[in-house]
Amino acid sequence: MTNKKRNINASFLLHGGDYNPDQWLKYPDVLKEDIQLMLAANTNTFSVGIFAWSALEPEEGVYTFEWLDKVFDDIHAFGGKVILATPSGARPAWLSQKYPDVLRVNAARVKQLHGGRHNHCFTSPAYLEKTQNMNRKLAERYGGHPALLLWHISNEYSGDCHCDRCQTAFREWLKERYDGSLDTLNDAWWGPFWSHTFTDWEQVESPSPNGEDGVHGLRLDWRRFVTDQTVRFMENEMVPIRELTPDIPVTTNFMADTPDLIPFRGLDYQRFAEKIDVISWDAYPTWHNDWETTAELAMKVGFIDDLYRTMKDQPFLLMENTPSMVNWHPVNKAKRPGMHILSSMQMIAHGSDSILYFQWRKSRGSTEKFHGAVVDHDRSPDNRVFREVAALGANMEKLAGLAGAHRTAEVALLYDWENDWALEDAQGYGLESKQYIKTMHAHYRPFWKRDIPVDVIGKTHDFQKYKLLVVPMLYMMENKTAEKLEKFVQAGGRLVMTYISGVADEHDLVHPGAWQEKLANIFGLCPAETDTLYPADRNSVQYKGKQYELKDYATVLELHGAKAIGSYEKDFYAGTPAVTEHDYGEGSAYYIGGRLEDAFQEEFYEELLIKEQIVAPVRIKKEEGVSIQARFHAHTTYVFIMNFSESEKAIELDQTYQDVLQGGFLEGLYLLKPYEAKVLQF
Amino acid sequence: MTNKKRNINASFLLHGGDYNPDQWLKYPDVLKEDIQLMLAANTNTFSVGIFAWSALEPEEGVYTFEWLDKVFDDIHAFGGKVILATPSGARPAWLSQKYPDVLRVNAARVKQLHGGRHNHCFTSPAYLEKTQNMNRKLAERYGGHPALLLWHISNEYSGDCHCDRCQTAFREWLKERYDGSLDTLNDAWWGPFWSHTFTDWEQVESPSPNGEDGVHGLRLDWRRFVTDQTVRFMENEMVPIRELTPDIPVTTNFMADTPDLIPFRGLDYQRFAEKIDVISWDAYPTWHNDWETTAELAMKVGFIDDLYRTMKDQPFLLMENTPSMVNWHPVNKAKRPGMHILSSMQMIAHGSDSILYFQWRKSRGSTEKFHGAVVDHDRSPDNRVFREVAALGANMEKLAGLAGAHRTAEVALLYDWENDWALEDAQGYGLESKQYIKTMHAHYRPFWKRDIPVDVIGKTHDFQKYKLLVVPMLYMMENKTAEKLEKFVQAGGRLVMTYISGVADEHDLVHPGAWQEKLANIFGLCPAETDTLYPADRNSVQYKGKQYELKDYATVLELHGAKAIGSYEKDFYAGTPAVTEHDYGEGSAYYIGGRLEDAFQEEFYEELLIKEQIVAPVRIKKEEGVSIQARFHAHTTYVFIMNFSESEKAIELDQTYQDVLQGGFLEGLYLLKPYEAKVLQF
Amino acid sequence: MTNKKRNINASFLLHGGDYNPDQWLKYPDVLKEDIQLMLAANTNTFSVGIFAWSALEPEEGVYTFEWLDKVFDDIHAFGGKVILATPSGARPAWLSQKYPDVLRVNAARVKQLHGGRHNHCFTSPAYLEKTQNMNRKLAERYGGHPALLLWHISNEYSGDCHCDRCQTAFREWLKERYDGSLDTLNDAWWGPFWSHTFTDWEQVESPSPNGEDGVHGLRLDWRRFVTDQTVRFMENEMVPIRELTPDIPVTTNFMADTPDLIPFRGLDYQRFAEKIDVISWDAYPTWHNDWETTAELAMKVGFIDDLYRTMKDQPFLLMENTPSMVNWHPVNKAKRPGMHILSSMQMIAHGSDSILYFQWRKSRGSTEKFHGAVVDHDRSPDNRVFREVAALGANMEKLAGLAGAHRTAEVALLYDWENDWALEDAQGYGLESKQYIKTMHAHYRPFWKRDIPVDVIGKTHDFQKYKLLVVPMLYMMENKTAEKLEKFVQAGGRLVMTYISGVADEHDLVHPGAWQEKLANIFGLCPAETDTLYPADRNSVQYKGKQYELKDYATVLELHGAKAIGSYEKDFYAGTPAVTEHDYGEGSAYYIGGRLEDAFQEEFYEELLIKEQIVAPVRIKKEEGVSIQARFHAHTTYVFIMNFSESEKAIELDQTYQDVLQGGFLEGLYLLKPYEAKVLQF
Repeated sequence: MTNKKRNINASFLLHGGDYNPDQWLKYPDVLKEDIQLMLAANTNTFSVGIFAWSALEPEEGVYTFEWLDKVFDDIHAFGGKVILATPSGARPAWLSQKYPDVLRVNAARVKQLHGGRHNHCFTSPAYLEKTQNMNRKLAERYGGHPALLLWHISNEYSGDCHCDRCQTAFREWLKERYDGSLDTLNDAWWGPFWSHTFTDWEQVESPSPNGEDGVHGLRLDWRRFVTDQTVRFMENEMVPIRELTPDIPVTTNFMADTPDLIPFRGLDYQRFAEKIDVISWDAYPTWHNDWETTAELAMKVGFIDDLYRTMKDQPFLLMENTPSMVNWHPVNKAKRPGMHILSSMQMIAHGSDSILYFQWRKSRGSTEKFHGAVVDHDRSPDNRVFREVAALGANMEKLAGLAGAHRTAEVALLYDWENDWALEDAQGYGLESKQYIKTMHAHYRPFWKRDIPVDVIGKTHDFQKYKLLVVPMLYMMENKTAEKLEKFVQAGGRLVMTYISGVADEHDLVHPGAWQEKLANIFGLCPAETDTLYPADRNSVQYKGKQYELKDYATVLELHGAKAIGSYEKDFYAGTPAVTEHDYGEGSAYYIGGRLEDAFQEEFYEELLIKEQIVAPVRIKKEEGVSIQARFHAHTTYVFIMNFSESEKAIELDQTYQDVLQGGFLEGLYLLKPYEAKVLQF
Repeated sequence: MTNKKRNINASFLLHGGDYNPDQWLKYPDVLKEDIQLMLAANTNTFSVGIFAWSALEPEEGVYTFEWLDKVFDDIHAFGGKVILATPSGARPAWLSQKYPDVLRVNAARVKQLHGGRHNHCFTSPAYLEKTQNMNRKLAERYGGHPALLLWHISNEYSGDCHCDRCQTAFREWLKERYDGSLDTLNDAWWGPFWSHTFTDWEQVESPSPNGEDGVHGLRLDWRRFVTDQTVRFMENEMVPIRELTPDIPVTTNFMADTPDLIPFRGLDYQRFAEKIDVISWDAYPTWHNDWETTAELAMKVGFIDDLYRTMKDQPFLLMENTPSMVNWHPVNKAKRPGMHILSSMQMIAHGSDSILYFQWRKSRGSTEKFHGAVVDHDRSPDNRVFREVAALGANMEKLAGLAGAHRTAEVALLYDWENDWALEDAQGYGLESKQYIKTMHAHYRPFWKRDIPVDVIGKTHDFQKYKLLVVPMLYMMENKTAEKLEKFVQAGGRLVMTYISGVADEHDLVHPGAWQEKLANIFGLCPAETDTLYPADRNSVQYKGKQYELKDYATVLELHGAKAIGSYEKDFYAGTPAVTEHDYGEGSAYYIGGRLEDAFQEEFYEELLIKEQIVAPVRIKKEEGVSIQARFHAHTTYVFIMNFSESEKAIELDQTYQDVLQGGFLEGLYLLKPYEAKVLQF
Repeated sequence: MTNKKRNINASFLLHGGDYNPDQWLKYPDVLKEDIQLMLAANTNTFSVGIFAWSALEPEEGVYTFEWLDKVFDDIHAFGGKVILATPSGARPAWLSQKYPDVLRVNAARVKQLHGGRHNHCFTSPAYLEKTQNMNRKLAERYGGHPALLLWHISNEYSGDCHCDRCQTAFREWLKERYDGSLDTLNDAWWGPFWSHTFTDWEQVESPSPNGEDGVHGLRLDWRRFVTDQTVRFMENEMVPIRELTPDIPVTTNFMADTPDLIPFRGLDYQRFAEKIDVISWDAYPTWHNDWETTAELAMKVGFIDDLYRTMKDQPFLLMENTPSMVNWHPVNKAKRPGMHILSSMQMIAHGSDSILYFQWRKSRGSTEKFHGAVVDHDRSPDNRVFREVAALGANMEKLAGLAGAHRTAEVALLYDWENDWALEDAQGYGLESKQYIKTMHAHYRPFWKRDIPVDVIGKTHDFQKYKLLVVPMLYMMENKTAEKLEKFVQAGGRLVMTYISGVADEHDLVHPGAWQEKLANIFGLCPAETDTLYPADRNSVQYKGKQYELKDYATVLELHGAKAIGSYEKDFYAGTPAVTEHDYGEGSAYYIGGRLEDAFQEEFYEELLIKEQIVAPVRIKKEEGVSIQARFHAHTTYVFIMNFSESEKAIELDQTYQDVLQGGFLEGLYLLKPYEAKVLQF
């Protein structure tokens, strides 16, 4: 695997999406119509082959690439580009029939039947061989095609397999991790507890509802292994691709978990980011739902954008989204007029260089026949959805100059997949109230509302480039992370940390003394106990003359140098410190001991921003519900002003801007219509 | 199988029920007492043998019919009749032990152990042979007995089996359906989606949580196959019966799903209706529950009655019901005084020629020992329930002349099992809000409240005989149904259809163009999009000067000839047509685009009824909560007036009627007591 | 097995708990620190070896007792005592690997993998042999150690196994129970129902979701068998212990079910009580939860204490509790200051001679690392929890004279495990509203609030020693229990019984005539029907001029000699008897027909107590929320006054008492602080 830096060097924004002509090979009129409609929709880029294995290799060793040749040529003919997917996301039935080891065994040790998708054993020698072979054929045939823009490796990797081969692979992985020493493994997993000491590697089994499901070290290592095994599978897929098309960049599409739009928790995507050239993801927010405001959901989208964008610190791709609705939400409500353009503009504002759809055309049958598409069952360009897509396409052409523009942030928020897993597994606190991601949102929201750019970083990222670093609930914190935090503060950074941080090391073993040693120095305090509250319990914190409601968690603190700047108001620790500040080296460290209402975070971060003179990239006054984001190119700043509300919102411009989409110039007061998005430039 | 027309030629209404003397063979005093109590209860007909296999053939090939001989003779001796059940509903343990292939394999491919009931593999050669053999013995022994009135084939057929034999049978069934062509099957199931193309029949497996569970065509065909296989099993049971007792009619007892009293959805009963002579069903409404009015529940009972009665357009039998309570509802509340007679009268009013109980006597042990019975554990005729049963029996004797009386309807409502399955499976819209049956209720309720008789028909019934045909949510509509609808309207019929109709064909493939072509002509419109709303979302429709609340669904319509008679009031389609009327041929067609509150249906159908001059069979003024139903014999009309409420209700008679139960005549005003039922005649 | 009477002859109360040095063998500083902290915490007794098998026998036949020798010696050195556990609660991995028949097969017939704990096949020859062998080693090595106080057999026995060996054992058990006659078994299980007659013992299988799950007799017998098989396993463990240490008493720790703190329902603990010398249990109430008052939860704790104490009519041990919080409740809230001492005093007040913790020290890793402990991760004696433990220890030293003190009661409440199982299984009534234990609470609460001691007895206990016997919902009542009740009343006792009692015999067969014959005589009535209500339904009862709300159940009664003292107010049985009184022999019998609100039980029992002159052991006036309990020694009475509320409560003493904990004397008015517990003596 080379370390060559590859990226898409498109001078335009990609517009198009998943195209499945393989479903329509018996409908030649449809295939013909597709090309015409692609032009009508102002699209330029299509992902093909994602689930086409049966159409590409209907029998083992018999290849039928002709239809795909034509797709490449047809798209190329009108100047379009192709993102070529490896078809490993779904197997042909003949493959499962002939090589049953490709089928997964689930955690209950039940061998699966053929069916569905995304359900392969990633250790299967047959699948490793067959996928690599297929990818080689594709690379050989299309690697040199001028329309080829990007490789799309498989689709939405996920899941795990517990077959005997995977058990063996897991044991090998453990041997490597623990230097071949079962004794080391037993120490790391706190083996003697319940006599869980292993004396033979063969005794180790993956977690199972039928067997061991409570040893935290085992569960954590299994999840790490699953990530590693999936990455290894992806790398295997990439071998012929890197060999035959060394200049074509590679992506794999990431996901988000629904319905609460949070990063996909099944795999540590930071590990994937190291291996691929371009980050891409599939975004399916439940716009217009009945449980949150549009702005709140937009904030959640922004959070994931900022996480995935920060991974490689470069523009990402929106690989899938719907122009209208999906078919798998509990309620599949259509995007209202304006929402598609608004939500697309947000993606671009946060760093996407594309708006790509799942799916180009609705199928007639099977699971996804009602998933929104550019082309509906009516096959017509003359409907609301198609028209909005075409209008967006026209806008994107006006924004072509934006391709590759970057974002920059002085604030970082640390999110860690392994911590998410360990915290979820932790038997303790409130089993349902830990809510790591909701806590991330609580600490991202104040910045988003103020249009302050945030990088959502991982623990291996460089901390030093930021002025302010926020670390909520980093329960599992290895010593080197604490060391990085110390250096960050010593060098002048502002660090904010919350309750339930620094408890366990990378093996999920509680740090001796119950708290990371370095943290005591940095924060000038020691947590004495973490009070866990019932859902109906409430406490409050007095902070700078105001009272803020507290629920779920309250850490009782012993100060050793820190200054209390907020204190609890009730219960046996009433009057004791709840929020503290501590000067350390050139910087300072803040500890928030309790789970406080949003108003606290609003106030708290407002002060920090003023202190650090961290400001939004542009000084436009706005009403609540409006988000303003910027991207930068050499001498140009693109400003996205987006009304995430159902009512008109006023903005007051600080200077004269060029209106990129409508043309002309804009200054002074402007009234945004509901869902209106403006793109300005200066 | 002959096509001979058979029916019960009883000159009385059947009163009695499931009798299980096989549970009491060691209690001879009980058996003796039974006969006396049968007379005291004014009963005349008993179903025997339903679960008696162990008592009839305790060892393979050893038959012990003597006890059953005596039951036949004892019942005959007092002039009673016997409904003889084939005992295939539950196997003896020896049969499972010796022939384990009779045991089902569930969808997760787990072979079941012996136990329970209604859980046989319908493909099992051993079970096919053993049941046919047992039925032959029964027919030989009792076929000529003068007390034998009716065959009761098995009991409450249900469920499916996924064993290897069933897989093979399914594949054979598919070969027949698809003319032996996998290519045709792949087309019908939209095979290329997710590479689900089959290249070998052996690759096809029944749906499974461990394998394929999302291919709609496969799921739909599996359900069809299960119906066919169960029908085939039933036909196999009937072979010796048809051969040896060609004049004795045959039934099998249908079910309803609870708690929301809807038709049993597991099997397409229309397919069974073709094979049996008499329809019968088991009715267990949750009377006096705490979530709906008594009248609302009575309406639901009426709906099923009208569905099952319409199947063969002749009286049906109430095969099972309880005189008091059941034991398997979440709350097993007893029928209040009066309710048993009221609910029984409703059954007869809607076309039943029987009131039969599960069960005659409560058992001492096992699962159903607390299920209500005519004879309670106290073995006494001197308790409330027994007295009400006896009183009902006396009433039924007065109604003997009613046997065979028919009902007649000018309104039809179309309910289709296959559509129910396909709609439930459909990934799209609101996954929980499709609610086909609730929508049926919404369109049945206005007629029931007005005492307008309704036939609930299937898609193969004759449409032409009705003035008004209502077709709610017929999502899956094959072309020949659309053709029948067109003919119906052209010939002068009034057709009403709702949102989410005519979307897919019989393979659950979306019709080209997204809507059934013929429908566009009939209705003079095309649905542009179906907006799906979140549970808390509301819209409204303006219709003839009034506003009606809308939830869940709103179809945006493009009119091509239709006239808008109602329009949406909110959202991006505010002001566009919601309800339309279209004259077509001699008739007219109405489209209801949104899911509207009951008040709309009340108003809408009221107007249609006036327009079509469809009136209730008798002109009796009544208060809400009173249901009036009629049955007809040559020159006699029987009128049932039933108060489904907990308060007194006034009625005003339009003429002088004979009071069948109390004797004498009735005219003018009459005050019905709570739960009172009167039967009048003229 | 000898019948020798053994007990702990400690002249002090035990304070200490589960100590797991086996988890810390690589941390010698920790082990050293432990001994110092034990002294600092005022502890004296430690349970060791509970999960130490891997540390005691790391390879088959290789024993490493040295570390345990040191633990014994170190504890002995400071005058402490050891409770030695047999380590059978968790197996080493090598044992599962070499003897896979130790692994359970679950009810779905899935063989379990190694992992977790408390999951052994109790029929496994290998496990029977290995556990007995290990116990022999332990008895040989430590049986004579002067620190050894008590054997702790295994840990929290629970669960069942459905492997082939267990099936065989079950069949053998059945043969013994039914005198080798399948016919007798078929009669007892009401075999002919659904043709469930067995003709070969091999046909009988344990209940399974894959097979038979509805035959009540089978289910009941399976649960009895599981208790017997577990007892047999325990007895097997005890063989070397009884042989080698005939004077050392034996316990096994019982559990409670959460979250609603009720007795553990999985095993009939009365059967265990017969075999062990000392009762002990593990108490984990959810103090400070958000759904009930502190007093209500204290009442539930008192109920279990009184049940487990009554079993052997001698002091019991609190074997496990937490000084702070657990880690497995949905919300793991810490005990507030004062609660640990208060809740400990309650245990001692109700008869415990110990306060023992799970756990001495929090582990660094695995499932229970966040379970509260005396020594927290901070390893410090200088925190709130440790200080409260040490303070409690100091108090317990002052209470040393209490060891062995007894309690005495004139009121008994009958709780029967088998009835609980049968009632839960019963298909009938309200499936969710039977709530046997809640009904027990409803009839225990009035006594607890009045500080009237209650023995919670089983059906084999002596009834005659009580003045008042309360029997709620004894659905399953064998004839000899009815006979005992009759004798009790005839001899002058007062008997109270409720709805749904005396319905079925010990096979769960309904008594002929539907009610236990003897009961009709005792109560002078016969229940005609049990009306079961929907959750929203309400009725009421008029009783001595007041109205009491009724829900769920109302029994319609026919009186044959009884006097109605309360009557229903609504529904078709309005005005009929709801509560009755019947003089019988020298005593009287009361029947409560409906489920009435607490206020009724308050009033009803208040009158009975006055009538029978049953009074609290001490006459101290108090406010609601205060509990006063007493224990007795020869000439000393210990009085515990406990404020189970969050506010100050006044008490007014009737005489001068010695204040055991604070020293000095107390008389007149005293204001208890929130959670304050006082121990007085006179």
